Amino acid sequence: MRDATTGAEVARVSTAGLDLAGALAYARTVGQRSLGALTFHRRAVLLKQFALALTERKDELYEISTRTGATKADSWVDIDGGIGVLFSYSGKGRREMPNAHVYVDGPVEPLSKDGSFLGRHIYTRLPGAAVQINAFNFPVWGALEKLAPAFLAGMPTLIKPATPTGYLTEACVRILVETGLVPDGALQLVSGPVPDLFDHLRLGDLVAFTGSAATAEKLRAHECVQTGGVRFSSETDSINASILGPDAEPGTPEFEAFVRQLVTELTSKAGQKCTAIRRSLVPSASVDALIDAVRTRLSERVVVGDPRADGVTMGPLASTAQRDEVLRQVARLQAAGGEIVIGSTEAPSVTHADGSVGPAPDGAFVAPILLRFADAAAPAVHEVEAFGPVASILPYETTAEAADLVARGGGSLVTSIATHDPEVAVELIGRISAFNGRVLLLDRDDARSSTGHGSPLPNLVHGGPGRAGGGEELGGIRAVLHHMQRTAVQGSPDMLTALTGVWHPGAAAQPGGVHPFRKSLTDLRLGDQVVSDTREVTLADIETFAHFTGDTFYAHMDEEAASANPFFPGRVAHGYLLVSWAAGLFVDPAPGPVLANYGLENLRFVTPVSPGDEIRVELTAKQITPRETDEYGEVRWDAVIRNQRDELVAQYDVLTLVEKELSKA
Amino acid sequence: MRDATTGAEVARVSTAGLDLAGALAYARTVGQRSLGALTFHRRAVLLKQFALALTERKDELYEISTRTGATKADSWVDIDGGIGVLFSYSGKGRREMPNAHVYVDGPVEPLSKDGSFLGRHIYTRLPGAAVQINAFNFPVWGALEKLAPAFLAGMPTLIKPATPTGYLTEACVRILVETGLVPDGALQLVSGPVPDLFDHLRLGDLVAFTGSAATAEKLRAHECVQTGGVRFSSETDSINASILGPDAEPGTPEFEAFVRQLVTELTSKAGQKCTAIRRSLVPSASVDALIDAVRTRLSERVVVGDPRADGVTMGPLASTAQRDEVLRQVARLQAAGGEIVIGSTEAPSVTHADGSVGPAPDGAFVAPILLRFADAAAPAVHEVEAFGPVASILPYETTAEAADLVARGGGSLVTSIATHDPEVAVELIGRISAFNGRVLLLDRDDARSSTGHGSPLPNLVHGGPGRAGGGEELGGIRAVLHHMQRTAVQGSPDMLTALTGVWHPGAAAQPGGVHPFRKSLTDLRLGDQVVSDTREVTLADIETFAHFTGDTFYAHMDEEAASANPFFPGRVAHGYLLVSWAAGLFVDPAPGPVLANYGLENLRFVTPVSPGDEIRVELTAKQITPRETDEYGEVRWDAVIRNQRDELVAQYDVLTLVEKELSKA
Repeated sequence: MRDATTGAEVARVSTAGLDLAGALAYARTVGQRSLGALTFHRRAVLLKQFALALTERKDELYEISTRTGATKADSWVDIDGGIGVLFSYSGKGRREMPNAHVYVDGPVEPLSKDGSFLGRHIYTRLPGAAVQINAFNFPVWGALEKLAPAFLAGMPTLIKPATPTGYLTEACVRILVETGLVPDGALQLVSGPVPDLFDHLRLGDLVAFTGSAATAEKLRAHECVQTGGVRFSSETDSINASILGPDAEPGTPEFEAFVRQLVTELTSKAGQKCTAIRRSLVPSASVDALIDAVRTRLSERVVVGDPRADGVTMGPLASTAQRDEVLRQVARLQAAGGEIVIGSTEAPSVTHADGSVGPAPDGAFVAPILLRFADAAAPAVHEVEAFGPVASILPYETTAEAADLVARGGGSLVTSIATHDPEVAVELIGRISAFNGRVLLLDRDDARSSTGHGSPLPNLVHGGPGRAGGGEELGGIRAVLHHMQRTAVQGSPDMLTALTGVWHPGAAAQPGGVHPFRKSLTDLRLGDQVVSDTREVTLADIETFAHFTGDTFYAHMDEEAASANPFFPGRVAHGYLLVSWAAGLFVDPAPGPVLANYGLENLRFVTPVSPGDEIRVELTAKQITPRETDEYGEVRWDAVIRNQRDELVAQYDVLTLVEKELSKA
Repeated sequence: MRDATTGAEVARVSTAGLDLAGALAYARTVGQRSLGALTFHRRAVLLKQFALALTERKDELYEISTRTGATKADSWVDIDGGIGVLFSYSGKGRREMPNAHVYVDGPVEPLSKDGSFLGRHIYTRLPGAAVQINAFNFPVWGALEKLAPAFLAGMPTLIKPATPTGYLTEACVRILVETGLVPDGALQLVSGPVPDLFDHLRLGDLVAFTGSAATAEKLRAHECVQTGGVRFSSETDSINASILGPDAEPGTPEFEAFVRQLVTELTSKAGQKCTAIRRSLVPSASVDALIDAVRTRLSERVVVGDPRADGVTMGPLASTAQRDEVLRQVARLQAAGGEIVIGSTEAPSVTHADGSVGPAPDGAFVAPILLRFADAAAPAVHEVEAFGPVASILPYETTAEAADLVARGGGSLVTSIATHDPEVAVELIGRISAFNGRVLLLDRDDARSSTGHGSPLPNLVHGGPGRAGGGEELGGIRAVLHHMQRTAVQGSPDMLTALTGVWHPGAAAQPGGVHPFRKSLTDLRLGDQVVSDTREVTLADIETFAHFTGDTFYAHMDEEAASANPFFPGRVAHGYLLVSWAAGLFVDPAPGPVLANYGLENLRFVTPVSPGDEIRVELTAKQITPRETDEYGEVRWDAVIRNQRDELVAQYDVLTLVEKELSKA
């Protein structure tokens, strides 16, 4: 492999003698076992440690990254962006997943009237290996954005980077391995050609592919995917669009933001991004102004050259082969009616490492190129991708026509819309979102804070239908779940409690005995329960509460008006009174392991409480989540308030923080 | 098509002259338009009306169903089961989806520090036609379980029933059409061969297939699926299993339940169910006892014959072709080591419509057959499916071995486990759930209330990995979302508010003016807001509240203990006091359109409130959901409590019921 700027040799790659079947078997056995011994939270903590280790040594990665043609800004997207994904998944894994092995999806589904038979959906990890095939343009980010969710799910990873820049991925993986923290078999790397890879895959394995649509098509057709049940997710570069809204005329902040974004997408990573803008849809009347504005900004802001030189803002493509391919596709666009209005296909004069300017015969340079199509419906512009600093301007007349042009791309990763008119935004999104994995709305309010058209974020899904591959990556926990199987489980409350680690109403409970507020997190058990005394609610109580809180809503204070209300028999107690009293009934007040009530969830008031009614509460330990890095954890309690007729008055979850151990004091 | 019992002609089917391209174009234009004019709730109301219309005329369907060989019990599963799916989706659509066109997925994702750039995931319907290819065994349920989620999503449906029993589907669709309530283009039916169907499909269309794995493989290989972006979901009959747990010895309630279930699955629909048990995994020591118990129960309970005859509990297969195919597969199982221990492949003597017993040369009858394999690992028993009243008994020694045998099926729709030991259940589920779409846990607690191994339910996902097709149907709203595209949208709070119909913090608000509690649902606007006065919390208030509620938790009452707590600076106000006061601060007490506060969601206490602190609350209309069939609807309010330093004290959603119109009084 050669340096993209100088052509000097960087690395040699071979798969000679590789035992691929052995590598996969190792993942499925040792890797599954070592990851399976860890909970979601333990894995999440490791992701953070990986992120810290990479941060510490990221200078090494930046140094190597320059050889791929990346500027410092390009490397930041790849390296810091990749590390950011690890941090993000570490946080989300601990905040949004249980400290357990099974992830519960959706609410309890009652399946019998007597409550003895319930349904619940769970996710469990796939039992095989996650094979991750990455593209050449993001050797670090591409590897880490696939590794993080697989690791969190508990699937062992086998990374197959693109050969041209795989030496940077290798350096990244080496740093991870050198932490000594990677569980056995959880991470492997294979560089170079592996034509028989898919012959070794089987049900329970997963392939996450990023690359060209043509390669995705070939891989997807393999028997292991078609009939073998191997999960195949692909994210392919697509013919993404940006739309200049009809209201975003020259001179508006939206017009300016649209121009800035287009120039950024043309030049960042030299346009080698699967999310880059290829089609810019512009109201006919604004096309000339748009081209002028882009030309001005390019000339003011963009310096093409060796990424090692000061002031260079755009580097070469990843290889001369890639450069030749891009120029071939530009020629196809020209043949289909595209007129080059900015840039050219000639080898550009570039800034060298020593600051001199001139030709670079061994470098993979292409100047930014903007084409203009008079006929926006020309098929080629919606089908041909020049994977470099190349975009086309397409004129449109109506928003319906703009939406139709977006759809002609056959499915995109992302479309952005520059408009300050909510009606335009809602209409266009209604028409185009089914053709896009992501849509960015750009206007004066978010132009400065926007993370950019071309930037996938760890908390938003990345992928798109049709031409974009049909897969989904990232999107926080969504990507973790793509590495797991959703299964509906039917059973008794006791069985579902044992399986999910969440206490289900109807399951065994332990009332009486030591008050659960006196138990540390370690001693507390699911089903530990307080069954309170009863307390009568009087009219005087309601009035006291109303005057103390200021809540004199008529349903509590005005018998006639309350009786006229379709839901109340007459004056009723405040819902807030009921939950406040419930706390008084279930709480054990002395200092102890319970540190705080930090919230309440899913509170529903079911039966109103009239003066003279009595209430009591049952509080049951529902879920116990020790924190990995604190001396306490969360306990979720199931709270049920009933009246003297045993009718359900209210139900909710109480959220508390509880110490892991009883303090010595 | 011929009567399964008598061989008499029932119907003739042809697709001669059919304009399939025209039918699909009609769905994509007129059907999309007419469904797009309706909100999720409007569509849900129509589903209920469809269910009521079918209920009213279900005798007609039962009459026709008999001709397919179905007993009354079989027809109940098909017809009442199908109607039940419509009712279920009608209810879930209104309870779990907004009364809107866009479905919001997951929480807000903050993307900038200043709150001006947010991310949100939305689902919008696919813009094409939903082509639904059904199997012959459930002509009504199969059609309705696919129609309901597609209709709710807003996708027009084209039903393609299996030809042998399609005349019953046709009768069902005819009843729906005759209601006059089906939106134009929303429902079409095509019976008979359509070999070029897939040539007409394109990005935005969806195929939901139920049938054989071989047909699924052929269809999935079509270019429109492989590269055209047509979504293809398949649910194929699989080699499902049931496991008798090691603890479920003869004489236990679990053993009895296991036997009852196996006999039911063998004979219901004459075993023609994609979910039927094909492999029964039994501890070696219990095999003989199990076979004896099954034999006894079959002889006591099962009468094979004409479904029209009294006392008949099992009818013929759907056709003589089907019967011949089943017998061929039984022969394959025998050749692979299966020994028939119950039943035979001889034509059985059956009960005729007139009550007489004897051979039925024109009927498609097969007696229940149980095979026994000495070698549980024989490949054929995990691969060959006899789609009729046929199952095999496989001995196992350890639970790990039982799990491995389940996995050999290559992916199943459902496995059931009879055990009363939670450890056995958890271990087995951990090992097998990734190979199953559904797992049923059968024990003494739920044996009587269990809905059964073979019964997919509308609120649980139906489908499975690998051999089972890899798709997912049902599962409540999950199936609706399979007809939609998930898209990440980035934008300003105002734009996301306009798009989702949910007010986002940072979006425009209208404070002051008429108190929003004085506005009817019709007059209320997103962003209508109350900004309250401030109120100081004193130590006396905290003590008053503690004594009134009984909540004397140390954090409120004991300065020393509270100070020692890591989260509190000293004694702090009760969270319940804060939300109670907040209600006092934001409420407008006089009778008006606000009927009730029915709940609270996502309450989090962020900054503790000390004596001397002041609090104020902002309450903002966040989501407005008029009910289709009531004179009121839900309003969700965004509530934020801050202190005098503008720190966030608490945030939550307040749920209220509000009248659509101001009453005249």
